[in-house]
Amino acid sequence: MDQLKQLNDRIISRVNINLEEFGFDTESFVKNSLEYDKMLKFYAFYGITSRHPIYFHFKKSNLAGSYFFGKCYVGRSTIYKSDIRGDELKRKGDTIRCSKNIPLVEDETITIKDSLLYKTLVHSNSHNPESPEEFGIRNTISAHYANIHGSTLEGCFLGPFATVDLMNLHSCIVGEFSYVQTGELFHRKIDPGTVWIRNHNFEFKYKFEKEILDDFVGVNSLYQPRGIIYDFVKEREQDYEKLFDVVNLEPIDAPATSAVSRYAVVLSKTHIGENVLVAQSAFLDNAVMGDGSNAQENSYIIHSTLVGLNVTAHGGKIIHSNIGFETFVGFNSFLNGKPDATIDIGEGCIVMPHTIIDPDVPIKIPGEHLIWGFIRSEDDLRNNTISLDKLADVRDSLRIGRMVFSGKGSVFIDGFKRRISQILLANGALFNNGEKRGHAQDDQNISFNTIQPYTTGELNGLYPSIRIKP
Amino acid sequence: MDQLKQLNDRIISRVNINLEEFGFDTESFVKNSLEYDKMLKFYAFYGITSRHPIYFHFKKSNLAGSYFFGKCYVGRSTIYKSDIRGDELKRKGDTIRCSKNIPLVEDETITIKDSLLYKTLVHSNSHNPESPEEFGIRNTISAHYANIHGSTLEGCFLGPFATVDLMNLHSCIVGEFSYVQTGELFHRKIDPGTVWIRNHNFEFKYKFEKEILDDFVGVNSLYQPRGIIYDFVKEREQDYEKLFDVVNLEPIDAPATSAVSRYAVVLSKTHIGENVLVAQSAFLDNAVMGDGSNAQENSYIIHSTLVGLNVTAHGGKIIHSNIGFETFVGFNSFLNGKPDATIDIGEGCIVMPHTIIDPDVPIKIPGEHLIWGFIRSEDDLRNNTISLDKLADVRDSLRIGRMVFSGKGSVFIDGFKRRISQILLANGALFNNGEKRGHAQDDQNISFNTIQPYTTGELNGLYPSIRIKP
Repeated sequence: MDQLKQLNDRIISRVNINLEEFGFDTESFVKNSLEYDKMLKFYAFYGITSRHPIYFHFKKSNLAGSYFFGKCYVGRSTIYKSDIRGDELKRKGDTIRCSKNIPLVEDETITIKDSLLYKTLVHSNSHNPESPEEFGIRNTISAHYANIHGSTLEGCFLGPFATVDLMNLHSCIVGEFSYVQTGELFHRKIDPGTVWIRNHNFEFKYKFEKEILDDFVGVNSLYQPRGIIYDFVKEREQDYEKLFDVVNLEPIDAPATSAVSRYAVVLSKTHIGENVLVAQSAFLDNAVMGDGSNAQENSYIIHSTLVGLNVTAHGGKIIHSNIGFETFVGFNSFLNGKPDATIDIGEGCIVMPHTIIDPDVPIKIPGEHLIWGFIRSEDDLRNNTISLDKLADVRDSLRIGRMVFSGKGSVFIDGFKRRISQILLANGALFNNGEKRGHAQDDQNISFNTIQPYTTGELNGLYPSIRIKP
Repeated sequence: MDQLKQLNDRIISRVNINLEEFGFDTESFVKNSLEYDKMLKFYAFYGITSRHPIYFHFKKSNLAGSYFFGKCYVGRSTIYKSDIRGDELKRKGDTIRCSKNIPLVEDETITIKDSLLYKTLVHSNSHNPESPEEFGIRNTISAHYANIHGSTLEGCFLGPFATVDLMNLHSCIVGEFSYVQTGELFHRKIDPGTVWIRNHNFEFKYKFEKEILDDFVGVNSLYQPRGIIYDFVKEREQDYEKLFDVVNLEPIDAPATSAVSRYAVVLSKTHIGENVLVAQSAFLDNAVMGDGSNAQENSYIIHSTLVGLNVTAHGGKIIHSNIGFETFVGFNSFLNGKPDATIDIGEGCIVMPHTIIDPDVPIKIPGEHLIWGFIRSEDDLRNNTISLDKLADVRDSLRIGRMVFSGKGSVFIDGFKRRISQILLANGALFNNGEKRGHAQDDQNISFNTIQPYTTGELNGLYPSIRIKP
């Protein structure tokens, strides 16, 4: 086990050097998160299909419980119960559009070096035009249920439930439950509970009250997650265990146009429509998945209906809710309806990433609204929603409650709607007559191969070096 | 699936060219054995420990249901539900003793190319001094439950239940249920049911009557196995299935000095003593495994007692039998005792490979005897056993029933006893106070990694190219 401990110590020291200016020590997080017995016990696995280029190279790493899909290199890293999903990587010949078009000279590869990812999701492709062929994560530590979405990272720490989206970060700390999509950041510390989107055309910023964060998703003195959202996730962890105990599972009943991962939990009374994607580590219980809807990794859809063409982004949680046609629920949102306090969201809405709705009474939000922040009662809707029409009229700036927006509202909405369309397209939600294939069609017929670490000897806890090509 | 079918067609044509002089066409065997749906369904797996050098390289092959351990390369081959067990491969620095000592310049690797192995066992190390670093199998097809033990093969066909032991064969056909250990053979066809050992010092030869073979282990017009032994094995196949369905199994109760493979079937009322090895695909039911006894791959020990220091070689079947101390049961032997017709074999006996005992009445064989051929009643003992003392006195030749021996009996016995001691040592049967470790100790704590084929697309049915190093 010595080599595994040395590996983690080396990662801690590398990340700490990058974050020296903040006086932030990652050791407490790492030492209190990692359980070495589990790092020896859980297998890792990788997916093979004929529809995605195949290259896996794992070296001097521990990969316990993690899943890899798409081209990927992992060296000198600990990837613990994480999903590294490269089915949206760019390919040779693709072109990046920025100030000028950059063609890719080879397939993009996810490259993770000297990093520790803990229950983290890595998805999409690098939005860093400096390295179009490499989606790189280096000298970085991420905590429970962080999302690294199309973001290259160097020398960073991501707190629990943090999301970095389409970014490029150097020597940054992203606090727990913060969402950032701000292009490029250097040497910044993002406060916990910050939801921040910024580009040349607009800026959206919201910051959760400290008391709300403390209740829902904070950290304790050892930098471990705590609060209602973490408890919710933790309570359901055991439901995943049986998926890992059994080699072959009876496939879930679903149309031929839909893909339900055998590593998703699907409990009783769930209906899967056409063109539906239920990803790895999604959780469905009494869920109606309307045609073209999807449940991404770490999303939970419980006692709820998704009417159709719905995106539930990574980590989105939808409970006792009715989600209208084409409504989008962002990363790590927590729609915590109850049997007598349901959540009803109309069609064409955008639930911003990291939104919390935790009602005591039924909540009804009309269609074509933007929804953000923290909502407990009908009263809160005033300060945490706006109709898209009204937002589209904003030319300069807008402040509602704790939210500040600047720029043109119409550009913000158009950008968001375009992205939602792209996500639906990529997921195969629009598949029709053999056209517009996406993940729901292409991620079927995956073969899962498993790998395990050495359990004795000098390399105890490390995985053998393994390289897989077509 | 086209590429997989092409692969098998190419193997058939390559082997056929080698066997052209015999007018033997392997197509009927291959086409009637392979079930393509199973070749897509079963995973392959390989074992990793800190005690064996690690190198696996699989390329352009189908490996359905097969297990690999030790250094191994497989290219352009179909390895179906076979065990390729390289834990006795020679290592860099080891020396082969033949006319002069040959030191190995690198670790030995099992290399399988352009071959089709069907439910075959490959074990031990190459006894071909021409290629000490390579245990090579090329342009070869082997049928159900063939044993390739320390034998290099080029352009050969092995029939069902055939064993080639410590050999080097070129363009040969080995008939069903034949055992050969004759150094080197070129362009030979070995009749079914031949048990033949030959070296510079002695020769042992026995040939089963055709009627006995027809009953116990023949082939039909499609060259598929048939008969009592095949039925016996076939009936128990489903007991293995649950081993493959589950990722983690409760370990079998066994002393810390013993290894019971999680891919062995162990049914009720089985006792495992100290220093016991129960290998991959062994089958135990109401078995007493005395200290230092072992059950090799594809062996069955049912309602039987192994008193201690017993070897049950690959494919040995022991039913309603009591096997004395230090008694050896050779490859593919079938000791088919019944509740009212038990088999009792004394201590220090040698049951020759491919011996069939199928009694209607209780059979008792005293200690220190050599046992061979076909035994149904006490009467048959006269023509199928001899005391080792008597055999040791043979100086020139001996004919008993259908068995012909020539050479010095004492040299034959000494060689056999020496080999049994080596097997016990290699298996860890003599482990004591931390000394004389063997497989029973070193094969514990194996990690099993699984791999699966492409299930769609151009490469459908082939496994991705995979290379694993420490």
